[in-house]
Parts: sequence; C-alpha cells; structure tokens
Amino acid sequence: MASFGSRTPDPVIIIVEPFGGSTRQHNPNLPFIFGDDAAVTRGDGIFETLLVAGGHVANFDRHFARFTSSAKRLGLPAPQLESWKKASAEAVEAWQATFPGMSPGDVPPAKCVWTYSRGRAATGLPTAWITINPIAPEVLEQRESGIAVMTGPRGIDPQADASVPWAMSSAKTLNYATNMAALRYAKSQGFDDFIFTDSNPDNPRVLEGATSTVVIAKKNGRLRTPSTGADVLKGTTQAALFEAAQEAGWKVKEKTIYLSDLYNAESVWLVSSVRMGARVTRLNDTVLPEPDNAAEIQELITKALQA
Amino acid sequence: MASFGSRTPDPVIIIVEPFGGSTRQHNPNLPFIFGDDAAVTRGDGIFETLLVAGGHVANFDRHFARFTSSAKRLGLPAPQLESWKKASAEAVEAWQATFPGMSPGDVPPAKCVWTYSRGRAATGLPTAWITINPIAPEVLEQRESGIAVMTGPRGIDPQADASVPWAMSSAKTLNYATNMAALRYAKSQGFDDFIFTDSNPDNPRVLEGATSTVVIAKKNGRLRTPSTGADVLKGTTQAALFEAAQEAGWKVKEKTIYLSDLYNAESVWLVSSVRMGARVTRLNDTVLPEPDNAAEIQELITKALQA
Repeated sequence: MASFGSRTPDPVIIIVEPFGGSTRQHNPNLPFIFGDDAAVTRGDGIFETLLVAGGHVANFDRHFARFTSSAKRLGLPAPQLESWKKASAEAVEAWQATFPGMSPGDVPPAKCVWTYSRGRAATGLPTAWITINPIAPEVLEQRESGIAVMTGPRGIDPQADASVPWAMSSAKTLNYATNMAALRYAKSQGFDDFIFTDSNPDNPRVLEGATSTVVIAKKNGRLRTPSTGADVLKGTTQAALFEAAQEAGWKVKEKTIYLSDLYNAESVWLVSSVRMGARVTRLNDTVLPEPDNAAEIQELITKALQA
Repeated sequence: MASFGSRTPDPVIIIVEPFGGSTRQHNPNLPFIFGDDAAVTRGDGIFETLLVAGGHVANFDRHFARFTSSAKRLGLPAPQLESWKKASAEAVEAWQATFPGMSPGDVPPAKCVWTYSRGRAATGLPTAWITINPIAPEVLEQRESGIAVMTGPRGIDPQADASVPWAMSSAKTLNYATNMAALRYAKSQGFDDFIFTDSNPDNPRVLEGATSTVVIAKKNGRLRTPSTGADVLKGTTQAALFEAAQEAGWKVKEKTIYLSDLYNAESVWLVSSVRMGARVTRLNDTVLPEPDNAAEIQELITKALQA
C-alpha cells in the first residue's frame, strides 16, 4: 500500500481556460474561486473524478465522454479534448514533481478531479480547473479490507417524463448534497458507504452507490450492474471493468437488480475511479462472505484501469 | 425605479467566521473560495437571498429561521443569530458606503446572499460569507411589467418516505442546477420564468417557481399558496405577504393548487425576496389579464418586506 510517510504532498491545481485551453498552475495555499461563480452559488457545473496511476490519468476516454455528455446536458460549451488531455498531463507532471527523484511508476496513485462550471456572474464565462490530491489512507484501506454498506431510498424518484431538458439526473453535476448526506448518515450508523434504492418497500430496485457504481458477481462467471437511466448514472469504472472482464471470459450485462439480488450474489462490489473496487463485506445487518474469486475481480478492476 | 446611472457599484463581500462570528470585508476583485470547499466540490452548503432596502436586510427573522432549519437538515453547526445579524448590518453599511453622501433611505435596494458551506476538506471547518450585489435592471423591470411563465414537471418526485434523514428536499441547499436549467429553458422558449409541477399529465399539481413561491389571488380577497412539503420549499416572502395581507383583511391559506387553479385565478404571482412580487401576465400560451387589485397586491408585498 502506498504511503506518504510523515509528509502529505501538496495538492496540484491547474486552471484551464475553457475555450483556448491555456493552463496555469495555481498555488494550492491560495483561493482561486470567486464568490459569484455559479459552481458555488448554484452548483451549476459538472465534474469527473479520475485515478492518477503509472504516470497518467486512468480511463481518460470514458471520463471525457461522460464529461462531454454532462456539459451538453447543462448547455455548457463542449469541453475541448486536446485542452483537457494536455491540462491533465500537466497536472500529473506537476504531481510527480512533488516527489523529486522518484520514477513516475513509483509515485503514489492520486485523485484527479476535473471541474467545469458555468462561471462567474461578473464575466459570463465558464471556469474550469483540475486538481490532484493524495488518496486518503482509508480509501486505500477499503480496497483491501472491504466495506460495510447500508441501503435506503434516495428520497426522490425520477418522473416518468424525466427526459425533460431541464432534468439533470443523467449529468454528473456538482449537486451532491443528498449523496453526501447519505454518506454521513451511513457513517453515523457504523457503515462505510451507502447504496441508493428506489422507494419500493418490499424488494426495492438497486440504483447506485453514493459515489460509485454497484456491480455484482454471480455464479458461472457473470457480472451484473443496474441498468443506467434517469436514476442510475453511467459508471466509467464499471464500463472499463466490464470490457476487461468480457475479454477475460466473463459474461457481463446491465440488468434490473433488486435488493434481494445483492444478498443472493456471490459478491457485491462498489466500483469507482479512485477506490477502484471495494467489496461489500456487510450489507445492512448481513455479513457477505468472501468469495473464492475476490482477488481475481480486484485484479480485473486494477487491470481495466491500467489499460 | 432605482438607477445606478453610468456606474455599477462594486459588490460587497463579508467573510463570516462561523463559530466566533468575527467578520472581515473582502476585496470583490479577488477570489476567496478554495478549490476544496464543499460548496464547490459537492454543493454541500446552504444559502438565503435577502432584499436590502431602507438601510437593512428585509424579513431577517424568517430568513434566519429557514437558514437554521436548512443547516440542521445538513448537519451543519447551527448558525449564530448574533453573528449573522451583525455581519448583515456590516454588509449593508459597506454597501451604503459605496454611495457616498447619499442618505440610507436613498441608496438603491440590493440583493444580499448568505452562504454557509461545510467548508474546506483541508481544514474540516465550515465557511460562510455574505455578499451584497446590485439588483439587475431586468429584475426591477419585471416587478412593474410582469412576467411570462411556462410550467412543466420538475423531472423528479419526492418518494413517499422522503422524510429519510438524507433527503435534502426541505433544505435550501446550493443544489440548484435543475432550477437553473429550467430557467434557461424557459428563456430559450421566450418566457421569463418557470413554475414546477408534479408529473400528473392531466391537471398537474403546482409546486413552486424556479427561484420563487407561487401565490394566487382569488375573488373575495383570498390568497392561496401551494402547501409546503417535500417538493415545495417554505417561502419567506410569501409568509411575510400572508401575514401583512391577513392584517389587511385578506383570507390566506396554504392549499393544494392545480394548474387549472392558476388559469382560473384572478391573478397569479411569483414572490421572492429580491424581485418581491412579479405578476404572471402570460402562463404558457394564455394571457392572464390584469386584475383591478394588482397595485394593491404589489403594495402589500412591498409593505410586508418593509415591516
């Protein structure tokens, strides 16, 4: 497991000029966001969280595709591929420079976030930036030791006509107050994470983790994830995993998944870009025993993100 | 109507230390929010928008009560009454100082926003600030000329058990991406504003404006507003209006209101702290004729906010 020893490295901040794509590195000890930025006043922006490993951001193409789709949903100018690629590379380079004398492969993995906001009221121009931060030790630990997860309804259901142009459910916006509240609640109850379900009281339909995608492994080499839609965001890490798994001979499919399916699975996973795969070791009050192939699945995820 | 002539006054920014309540004025030409503030990264914070008029923030008590209730819902430390009162007064004083030689009563009304966020990841401490900005000329104009409003579903319905502790629907959080998207859509269709309804396709239930409360006036001196609940935020301006109206002999009530009730009303209003009352002059494709008592209702709202 990566360790920073006694020193926590400084975050890297790269400001991205959203049209021309010019970049500048910003001192992380100084603020850079104005009080009239729509990201702050209205959560009117989008983001992506990516893993930095082996000298680059992992799974770039899938993150960029979702970023582009979120921007379109919000009516933001399309992000420029070359700008974000270049700015991400610069950010990774700056991150590596905080470990002088270390080869890129030895630099500890990190968490990269792209943020793209409608911008300042004063200028009317979008703002965008990239940060790279160390990965919290507990996140690294959860990859290895697994997580206890509670389930519960999200509190809202998408309407039948959730395809109205102003519905933001299929975009990855900065509006995460409910997700954060669910995570805090889970922690207050002795859990590590939270899985949202719909409001069916009997056998609710499984949606997604607070900041992750649900994947279940079933007998005979099958992986399943809840069908994406108005209440389930498309997962970038899950998509990478499914591609790698299929190549390795697994049968993978999006399906309607119910809470009972989690209890009946061989194993249940929350997958996301930085924590990668965390196996659910306890679901509500039920201990989920370790399957024989846990290490194999972990390795698939790691390999998928290194592709 | 207030006018700034050729000069737009600078915004006022007051940073509020959320525990001790000490304040400092910040240069509006400089950023002050760090990239790791939860307001930016997750919309994990709350806000209130207040009118500044006659030398003070209007309707303080109701705004502070809702602010406190929102903070509680998010698990933020309770805002300190004396801090916010003092900081608001300082902000108003600083705003007035941008109009040297003008008596407080002559200073143009302005828009005050309180923001209170879970704060920086680096410190774990909440951040809070107050801004005062000039009111946009089109907002002042809409008070007088009225507004064209479209209606549509919000895209999400609260679940039956929306009272789960992580549901944020009854808090005024920074998660306004959907509301902003609805406003943009309305403007793209030639409207000024948007009223959310539930998803009933036949005669949908009326919820609230994108940034305002719906009030209708009916024959025989009756005012109605949609019942508050998981999908309708309690309105501070509507509450002030109802109190003033009741004293003036109106009959006021929260009720279930359907779209047909809007078409059948004597008049329909969107009320909010800064625009105060804006009469709906066109609802979707239907022109709503001016009632005899429009000026009287406008005056009630103005008086209510000056109390």
